[in-house]
Amino acid sequence: MEATLADLCRMLEAQGMRPQAEGDASLRISRVATLEDAGPQDVSFLSNPKYERMLQTTRAGAVVLRPGVNAPAHLPCIRVDDPYAAITVLIVRLHGHRKHRPAPLNPAVTTIHPTARIGENATIHPGVTIDEDVVIGRDAVIYPGCYIGPRCHIGDRVLLYPNVVIYEDCQLGDRVTIHANTVIGEDGLGYAPVGGQWVKIPQIGWVEVQDDVEIGAGCAVDRATLGKTVIGRGTKMSNLVAIGHGTRIGEHCMLVAQVGVAGSVVIGDHVTLAGQAGVVGHVRIGDHATVGAKAGVTNTVGPGETVLGQPAIPIQDAKRQVVYISRLPELYEQVKRLERQVAELEKHRHVSQVE
Amino acid sequence: MEATLADLCRMLEAQGMRPQAEGDASLRISRVATLEDAGPQDVSFLSNPKYERMLQTTRAGAVVLRPGVNAPAHLPCIRVDDPYAAITVLIVRLHGHRKHRPAPLNPAVTTIHPTARIGENATIHPGVTIDEDVVIGRDAVIYPGCYIGPRCHIGDRVLLYPNVVIYEDCQLGDRVTIHANTVIGEDGLGYAPVGGQWVKIPQIGWVEVQDDVEIGAGCAVDRATLGKTVIGRGTKMSNLVAIGHGTRIGEHCMLVAQVGVAGSVVIGDHVTLAGQAGVVGHVRIGDHATVGAKAGVTNTVGPGETVLGQPAIPIQDAKRQVVYISRLPELYEQVKRLERQVAELEKHRHVSQVE
Amino acid sequence: MEATLADLCRMLEAQGMRPQAEGDASLRISRVATLEDAGPQDVSFLSNPKYERMLQTTRAGAVVLRPGVNAPAHLPCIRVDDPYAAITVLIVRLHGHRKHRPAPLNPAVTTIHPTARIGENATIHPGVTIDEDVVIGRDAVIYPGCYIGPRCHIGDRVLLYPNVVIYEDCQLGDRVTIHANTVIGEDGLGYAPVGGQWVKIPQIGWVEVQDDVEIGAGCAVDRATLGKTVIGRGTKMSNLVAIGHGTRIGEHCMLVAQVGVAGSVVIGDHVTLAGQAGVVGHVRIGDHATVGAKAGVTNTVGPGETVLGQPAIPIQDAKRQVVYISRLPELYEQVKRLERQVAELEKHRHVSQVE
Repeated sequence: MEATLADLCRMLEAQGMRPQAEGDASLRISRVATLEDAGPQDVSFLSNPKYERMLQTTRAGAVVLRPGVNAPAHLPCIRVDDPYAAITVLIVRLHGHRKHRPAPLNPAVTTIHPTARIGENATIHPGVTIDEDVVIGRDAVIYPGCYIGPRCHIGDRVLLYPNVVIYEDCQLGDRVTIHANTVIGEDGLGYAPVGGQWVKIPQIGWVEVQDDVEIGAGCAVDRATLGKTVIGRGTKMSNLVAIGHGTRIGEHCMLVAQVGVAGSVVIGDHVTLAGQAGVVGHVRIGDHATVGAKAGVTNTVGPGETVLGQPAIPIQDAKRQVVYISRLPELYEQVKRLERQVAELEKHRHVSQVE
Repeated sequence: MEATLADLCRMLEAQGMRPQAEGDASLRISRVATLEDAGPQDVSFLSNPKYERMLQTTRAGAVVLRPGVNAPAHLPCIRVDDPYAAITVLIVRLHGHRKHRPAPLNPAVTTIHPTARIGENATIHPGVTIDEDVVIGRDAVIYPGCYIGPRCHIGDRVLLYPNVVIYEDCQLGDRVTIHANTVIGEDGLGYAPVGGQWVKIPQIGWVEVQDDVEIGAGCAVDRATLGKTVIGRGTKMSNLVAIGHGTRIGEHCMLVAQVGVAGSVVIGDHVTLAGQAGVVGHVRIGDHATVGAKAGVTNTVGPGETVLGQPAIPIQDAKRQVVYISRLPELYEQVKRLERQVAELEKHRHVSQVE
Repeated sequence: MEATLADLCRMLEAQGMRPQAEGDASLRISRVATLEDAGPQDVSFLSNPKYERMLQTTRAGAVVLRPGVNAPAHLPCIRVDDPYAAITVLIVRLHGHRKHRPAPLNPAVTTIHPTARIGENATIHPGVTIDEDVVIGRDAVIYPGCYIGPRCHIGDRVLLYPNVVIYEDCQLGDRVTIHANTVIGEDGLGYAPVGGQWVKIPQIGWVEVQDDVEIGAGCAVDRATLGKTVIGRGTKMSNLVAIGHGTRIGEHCMLVAQVGVAGSVVIGDHVTLAGQAGVVGHVRIGDHATVGAKAGVTNTVGPGETVLGQPAIPIQDAKRQVVYISRLPELYEQVKRLERQVAELEKHRHVSQVE
């Protein structure tokens, strides 16, 4: 759809924001685009001040940004306190978002156990398998190829993209979204060494995925050996993330792609694990901690700490180490020079003693 | 089910173990739980002496542990040589384990090629595709969404969880378990550079997964270019593990989540690769070797060696390097101090020479 | 099939190569095999001169190799400029390659939206879902369990192995191959922090996979927030690779298993990312650059550069750092020795001053 700059402001006001327009209010906008890609009919946004210089070169028709940020005089702006939240509103209004087309239930190509209870207005696509005693909430959408094992409880408005597999006894809260080909509740790596062979320890626990969690594509979350593995309320995970058995992740965390967390780990709330970070088993990570990309956490991380490196240490130490290591060639030179100087001094001393 | 401490001992004796009970033999137990989660009706266990202090705080009704481990006087115990093996028996007896409900074959929603041979008592769920000349063993269970390509041979009692894909010509031994969304036998990364483009080298080998292997969720095991990729008897793999073409992994190995092994690698028996470890192509890893978490193996690892770091080196060297690196700030200080002292000494020498 | 050495040469000549045979031209060959596995009826090949010594021990009947490479006098050879390209021809001729058996469209177990357009001679297997307004090209092969979302455009001769998921609006060029259980176009990790919670930013972009791309098993390629994520023409990716939203990968690149590229990255043409390498968001990697295994790219990499390490630096610097670090124990010893020597010198100086 198309809208004027004034229209955009009204859309934001309707969400309780207080936008300030600068420039031609009748300017016509038809799309949202990045600063890099935007053209004269597009509205773009600047959230991170680090990229402020891009305002000089963007071809965008208008930009959403914070009060106080410098913008070229000719560039129409909408000033709001939270440009991200504002642009989210504009994206949905100008472009709409993914519609989940209702699909009539087709019993010929769907396998729903007679004991399963399907909530009102839920959409179960063809090729889905729902096993015995499963409960599916209202308005849930289950895409083709999903498998939901016995006794799982799936909350209201849950969204499972194609080929998601949920093993038996797992619990998904309301408004959980899981992207394609992710697996929840597979057995963890539980074996006892008996006579040189690995004997399987039955994994009889489950996984609890709390309300408003979103999990990316191709992830794997182990069920607990006993008790539960927990993904806390509001936590978001990217793709190809592996979570070990019995691990408890707090609320509103962010796990970037290819993170791996071993078993029996306890992670607090509002924790960020950056891409390809790993956490060994049985450690704790405090609230609001941040683990840098590729870091290897081998010990407890305190609340609010930021760690980096392998093994992971406080980020300022890790960064200093990188600098120190980069200067090693000089250090070796300095030491070699010192050795020559000291040898010279010693020779001189011996000479003077002999004298 | 519920049982007394004496009943539990009899369950273990029936498996050839020699449990010694301490405390009230009539105590009633209904669940197995971790030391952390257990309550008064639960039996728990301690295998790793590192967590011995948890015996002081656990609320468990009873604990299975090794002879000689100190436990609080009031805590009923069952002493056995291998607590892990014992607790496995108790879990199965008290809780049961996953049942694979037999599903009647439904030809309308299952695609089985007429030349395929399905073993006695095998369960083929709806939505499975079994291609031409496939052989499926007795008592195999194939969950919905699995695809088994032409000429695959699947052994007896094999268990394929939902959406497992096996490309053509692969061989799975008896009692192999593969978790959801894992792929066996996709093409390896085989291309020849011809005129600035990549030309595909047909990957005509296969994968051999030997008896009693268990593979986690979301893994990918390349077929060989020629010949076979091998996962040896009794080896266990966690989730999101990648194995390259033509690699041969020995027997009773343990591969933790997100391990990556490139092509043409030869790994011995009883080898452990910890989480996120990587192995470059064409190297060998000897029997009983251990590769630490996140290690990057770039060279042969000898039998029984434990390596760590990137590039991976013997663990004691790797740990010493971590210490040395952490002390670099001091070392730089020491060298700076030495330089001042030597400059002072040299000045003095010149002065005294001038004198 | 079986062929003589002379026959093999004719097969290569038919492809425009100029093979030179050495040894018995009537020798009968029935298979292609690796130098290690080959027997007297097999032809093998040597491409990498590093493995030249294997020519001494191979049991192969004949070997394809470059002019000028030393081979044992008794070993029949076919000399060509590009042994890899030659062996590819011989593999296809002697063994054939994967045949994609045509499957009659079975509307009872396939869900094809009436608005979808399926190209001539395309094979849509049972259990496939094709959503509204999808276009599928000629001769495409879509294996069981694939899901193709609304408005996707799939080119001619595209090959999707089982359980591939393509979210809405994505575009696949001609001759694209995607291996099993890979996901294209899932939402990227786009959230804005609002009041301590993560609010989802709708991901309304798409993924463009250009002609002749091949993507391995279990990968995940995020759609862009706005605009497109691009995998450039002829690029090849191995398994379990994660690509972030809005990233643009150039042409004829090679991404090895478990590589992770964050969002908004721009990668040039002919770039190689080795196994488990990671790239942070918003950086650029120039044409013909190489990123070593497990490297962590945190900054721009120039054209033709090869980087290694975490953070990634030029490979020669990274290798030197490894050597310097390995010698730290000696360096600490040297400095300690220097301190003793200097203390001794200072004592002497003070003594002589006192004298």
